[in-house]
Amino acid sequence: MAGAFDTTLPVVTTENRDGSGPFLIVCEHASNHFPAEFGTLGLEAETRAAHIAWDPGALGLARGLSQALDAPLVAAGISRLIYDLNRPPHASGAMAARSEVFEVPGNAALTQQERQKRTEQVYLPFHAALHAEIARLLSMDRPPVIVTVHSFTPVYHGQRREVELGIIHDADPTFAKAVLAEAEALTGLTCRLNEPYSAADGVTHTLRLQATPYGLHHVMLEIRNDLLADDLAVASLSDGLAPVLTAALARIGTSKRKASA
Amino acid sequence: MAGAFDTTLPVVTTENRDGSGPFLIVCEHASNHFPAEFGTLGLEAETRAAHIAWDPGALGLARGLSQALDAPLVAAGISRLIYDLNRPPHASGAMAARSEVFEVPGNAALTQQERQKRTEQVYLPFHAALHAEIARLLSMDRPPVIVTVHSFTPVYHGQRREVELGIIHDADPTFAKAVLAEAEALTGLTCRLNEPYSAADGVTHTLRLQATPYGLHHVMLEIRNDLLADDLAVASLSDGLAPVLTAALARIGTSKRKASA
Repeated sequence: MAGAFDTTLPVVTTENRDGSGPFLIVCEHASNHFPAEFGTLGLEAETRAAHIAWDPGALGLARGLSQALDAPLVAAGISRLIYDLNRPPHASGAMAARSEVFEVPGNAALTQQERQKRTEQVYLPFHAALHAEIARLLSMDRPPVIVTVHSFTPVYHGQRREVELGIIHDADPTFAKAVLAEAEALTGLTCRLNEPYSAADGVTHTLRLQATPYGLHHVMLEIRNDLLADDLAVASLSDGLAPVLTAALARIGTSKRKASA
Repeated sequence: MAGAFDTTLPVVTTENRDGSGPFLIVCEHASNHFPAEFGTLGLEAETRAAHIAWDPGALGLARGLSQALDAPLVAAGISRLIYDLNRPPHASGAMAARSEVFEVPGNAALTQQERQKRTEQVYLPFHAALHAEIARLLSMDRPPVIVTVHSFTPVYHGQRREVELGIIHDADPTFAKAVLAEAEALTGLTCRLNEPYSAADGVTHTLRLQATPYGLHHVMLEIRNDLLADDLAVASLSDGLAPVLTAALARIGTSKRKASA
């Protein structure tokens, strides 16, 4: 590992590591924490609380799913504006100078050294921790289904988004399509495959880096954040989505057994 | 990172980190070292020196290419029979109980804990070190071309292999095909694409995990090990292959510029 990491930075937390369910939950945009070391990037407190700094409600939903599914959870502890963990180090969006309609002054003129420091102190330890969890489960012959949990803003560039639950995949659509079918059957949500964006928009980096190389089933859940407005709403959605994931896994398990019979 | 690593284990060495060339050289099977902690797996010294324990000559060639191309080199320091770093943790070949015609007694009845320990102490730190090098280069906007260096035995299961230089790729064949063209033009070697084996045989794990998720150009070089019998032969092959890699990169660079012109 290059360089010494400041272990006081809450870059990543792993919860419920002993969970024995088939899923592994990931929440890259869990926090809008700005560590003193990186400053506030020139943003007002109001902007640092907005959706460009994190995915509001996503951590609560991820924790609810982790509990309901007895699944390990790997969650980030730093704002996506310091480093967006769902982007590779050479992507402009990794340390975005502009996000939707907001300028991010502290990211406008980053030096090569600053980009390298954030990569080493945030990106690498987060993905190393996630990789360690996946490798541990693989070494026990328990390949996990990877579920990344995100939220999106109801209004983007002035446009209202109708989709409530976006279901996104990287290379292999198998599990995502099963989630779509079960979500439409079991919930009243407006569901869409690969909306409000898809792998072609570069939003599946975590899945591409961590799930696809191992052939792991995976899905990225994108929930419109007005459905995650308070703890009660988050708990309700978690109660609704946990059985969707379980049923989706059973669905592809069944079809696989049939195919090989 | 799960667990505490024994940092006295020479799991991975990174050399020439300041190299400023466009390549990053990787050598997963560089060493036939068996650390005392893992024992000799019940193998005689002669077997531990054979091709099943490592890729004889590969490290010398990798170092020669690293010097000639001014490229960083990430090399392993432990036998592939302890953990084959070019295999995922759930593959039977990661800690093989049998390799070609050899039984490996110490791998015949590994417990889940032993598999997990080797994964945490060998696989994870090696791939974390390689990932760190790649991420560092990406953060500097210098996406490296990944070149993994291997050797293979001239006789396998009693069959003589005619190929001298195998040129293997993961998902994207672009760079490998350019290497094939230049190797045929510039060397007298018998060259083959995706021989003596290919991605379908599960031999491109490192490329799949580290190069393909970032869209990096890559190639796996497999050299028949009778061409690497001594230092002089290794130096000669390194002198021959370094210009091949440079010419192959120029070739795809040129075709790309033409395509976008």
